[in-house]
Amino acid sequence: MVHNGIEYGLMQLIAESYDLMRRGLGLTDDELHTVYESWNHADLNGYLMEITSNIFLRVDETTGERLIDVILDEAKQKGTGMWTSQDAMELQVPVPTIDMAVAMRNLSAFEEERQAASVALDGPKTKFQGDRHSFVDRLHNALYVAVIITYAQGSALLWKASQAYDYKLDLEGVARIWRGGCIIRSALLEDIRAAYRAQPDLPNLLVNPFLAEKIMARQGDLRVVVRTAAELGIPTPAMMVSLAYYDGYRSSWLPANLIQAQRDYFGAHTYERVDAKGVFHTQWEKE
Amino acid sequence: MVHNGIEYGLMQLIAESYDLMRRGLGLTDDELHTVYESWNHADLNGYLMEITSNIFLRVDETTGERLIDVILDEAKQKGTGMWTSQDAMELQVPVPTIDMAVAMRNLSAFEEERQAASVALDGPKTKFQGDRHSFVDRLHNALYVAVIITYAQGSALLWKASQAYDYKLDLEGVARIWRGGCIIRSALLEDIRAAYRAQPDLPNLLVNPFLAEKIMARQGDLRVVVRTAAELGIPTPAMMVSLAYYDGYRSSWLPANLIQAQRDYFGAHTYERVDAKGVFHTQWEKE
Repeated sequence: MVHNGIEYGLMQLIAESYDLMRRGLGLTDDELHTVYESWNHADLNGYLMEITSNIFLRVDETTGERLIDVILDEAKQKGTGMWTSQDAMELQVPVPTIDMAVAMRNLSAFEEERQAASVALDGPKTKFQGDRHSFVDRLHNALYVAVIITYAQGSALLWKASQAYDYKLDLEGVARIWRGGCIIRSALLEDIRAAYRAQPDLPNLLVNPFLAEKIMARQGDLRVVVRTAAELGIPTPAMMVSLAYYDGYRSSWLPANLIQAQRDYFGAHTYERVDAKGVFHTQWEKE
Repeated sequence: MVHNGIEYGLMQLIAESYDLMRRGLGLTDDELHTVYESWNHADLNGYLMEITSNIFLRVDETTGERLIDVILDEAKQKGTGMWTSQDAMELQVPVPTIDMAVAMRNLSAFEEERQAASVALDGPKTKFQGDRHSFVDRLHNALYVAVIITYAQGSALLWKASQAYDYKLDLEGVARIWRGGCIIRSALLEDIRAAYRAQPDLPNLLVNPFLAEKIMARQGDLRVVVRTAAELGIPTPAMMVSLAYYDGYRSSWLPANLIQAQRDYFGAHTYERVDAKGVFHTQWEKE
């Protein structure tokens, strides 16, 4: 199930890269084929990248158009991504990239409402400025970073589940099996195997030194992609929350103290302190 | 339950605005009090805004510090936000802002891992550039837009649930009850009541002309806030996905056609076409 959750996340990330290149940069199907093919021949090598590259070449026998352009933009699902998100919430492990993959499949099915809203609601007038080739390179790096972050979320879920249910999961073995032959098989899984071989009890792939180095060197490109998507009005929630997951995970402080204060204020739910053990309650309203 | 889901979303959005002003702009607790107080006296008026404003003034009796600064940044939960996200997934209604509120509460609890990651992983060196006052004004507008979008997601869930379970919900009545006295009570609920009074079968609040006008006029500020957060390395997933929800909902075309093609390619899950009814399958691999 977690395999399929990761698969949902990767598919949504690739779809967002497609949207940025199609609606953002105006690339043709031939150009998209070439981009994904080149990505498949470098460090994003993997089964999903390979089939994506092939998809843009395929001609529809009925119309003679590219098949991709006559396929309806409503994604179906069998539920495995949803179950991953739901179970992750039960175990209190954040998998935001997978959550957004599920949400966007659901949003895609609101076809009729989207058609009406596209007339009623406007977006930015901004068109893409800048060099298309260098943006495609940045997009490659952004996708690479977001893909690692997606594997990290799924693996962290497996790690927590293994502890909660006493599965005694061998995560290096899981990565080896996924590498062997499945939909998310990719070159990156070799690096993930190596990470777990070096530290079998690694709580999160992001702190493996090799992967951390890769992410840190390329995070700037993910930031530029998120900024560009926001400015162009192209929805890239999976890219966005992959970045937010990275920034949240590396935050020694998060604003959750305010949420604790609010909960204690309106519901006497108590809070914890930084300087003492135990739970505390404050009478916030003046008597 | 949906009330509490919306509450989770609004609390996360307010927490992100706090983070941007604290870590991003360097505002003091006194300044934060003043900002939230002024927001509570304008169109963001509501109970959560009021208590947030009060929280920043409260002095801790033990240390003499502001209480907010000695509260631990680990948010607890009773599960109502999680149930909203889980049930929305079952009903295939996207509520991404609520999903992110749940994910970030969960991430906040990884206190020990976050401390270790804060040393291992770096972020951008960028400091905030620009005028603090005008950024706070933009943040107000961004929060206002994201709050409407959060109510829209929750209300769309109620609308779908009402149809699925034949609840015959009166959404104007729901808004009136929420307005009367509960944690998410706010001035904005008057506008939401008016929207449902004008059109009881409104599928989504975003297409109500009055609310649409407000969002369209201020969407640019939400885009600037998302961009700034990405550049500064401050996690704002709820702001980000609120924007992505808006951009996705108003998209007459989404890249879900690629997801359909991929699913048919690797699993023969079939796809639909834009030019014909029915389901179709293609033998993607050359024989």
